[in-house]
Amino acid sequence: MTQAGKAWVFGNDIGTDQLAPGLYMKRPIDEMARHCLEDVDPRFAGEVERGDVVVAGRNFGMGSSREQAAQALTHLGVSAVLANSYGGIFYRNSLNLGLMVLICPATGRIVAGDRIAVDPGHGTVQNLTRNETYPCEPVPAHLMQMVQAGGLVPYLEQKLRSGHVGANGE
Amino acid sequence: MTQAGKAWVFGNDIGTDQLAPGLYMKRPIDEMARHCLEDVDPRFAGEVERGDVVVAGRNFGMGSSREQAAQALTHLGVSAVLANSYGGIFYRNSLNLGLMVLICPATGRIVAGDRIAVDPGHGTVQNLTRNETYPCEPVPAHLMQMVQAGGLVPYLEQKLRSGHVGANGE
Repeated sequence: MTQAGKAWVFGNDIGTDQLAPGLYMKRPIDEMARHCLEDVDPRFAGEVERGDVVVAGRNFGMGSSREQAAQALTHLGVSAVLANSYGGIFYRNSLNLGLMVLICPATGRIVAGDRIAVDPGHGTVQNLTRNETYPCEPVPAHLMQMVQAGGLVPYLEQKLRSGHVGANGE
Repeated sequence: MTQAGKAWVFGNDIGTDQLAPGLYMKRPIDEMARHCLEDVDPRFAGEVERGDVVVAGRNFGMGSSREQAAQALTHLGVSAVLANSYGGIFYRNSLNLGLMVLICPATGRIVAGDRIAVDPGHGTVQNLTRNETYPCEPVPAHLMQMVQAGGLVPYLEQKLRSGHVGANGE
């Protein structure tokens, strides 16, 4: 179970160009991250706090495959993303880069500012403000460990050192 | 561009337990794969041919994280899956295990038996039967190479031998 964080709520089809605007993509990550989602919510990048949760509808992270989209959110301290569905490459990049992305059909019940605690291993999302619990797709232990390690490369380094790599490399 | 294959069309919410039925999950892959999707279409596993394409609606591969779900499809020779959205763990497992999974909003236009050719790199799906082209999420070159190599482990072996591993391990 993560510590509870505040929900930032977005709609459907948030694209990687909104997460990592093309204009700032070649800038250092701390500068680029300050523009994350500014087209949709200009307060977000300045006010999001470590442990907060991004909540969205369908197809979050659609668009280009730029890795900066996930990096901006981790840099800002976002602890998890909850969405109905994802752009596939964004989903993959996110876990590889240490951002916990979860499929949750009930995100429409979450209101901006709600206190949210996520348990990816058990596949549950608690809305502490509304005293409700929603299911999310559970994340297998090895992927939890990978995300907690900070992503695929630090995780594989750990695994290779310990001599354990599974059938799909995880 | 892949060679064209025949479309096998399924609906929404096809789960990993339908792809890899629990009853046969511990059996050898060739036995298990013969039961792939038998609850939904009993002809599928016996008649699908190398290069055919699986087409579905929302949330394909929902449910458990069992890797056999993707392995059954690759074992049967399925060249690609096209769906509106995926269970996230299935999506991730599939690419890692060498199965090309693509997000395609227009799968509802494809009818069983249509001849389909997929170009994941350019993000296009051609329906040769209907003379239509649909967009799909483009797949970056390094992921194309990974899938073509047979998945993450053989790909990483190639990369480690050549001394090139990128920032997210790919």
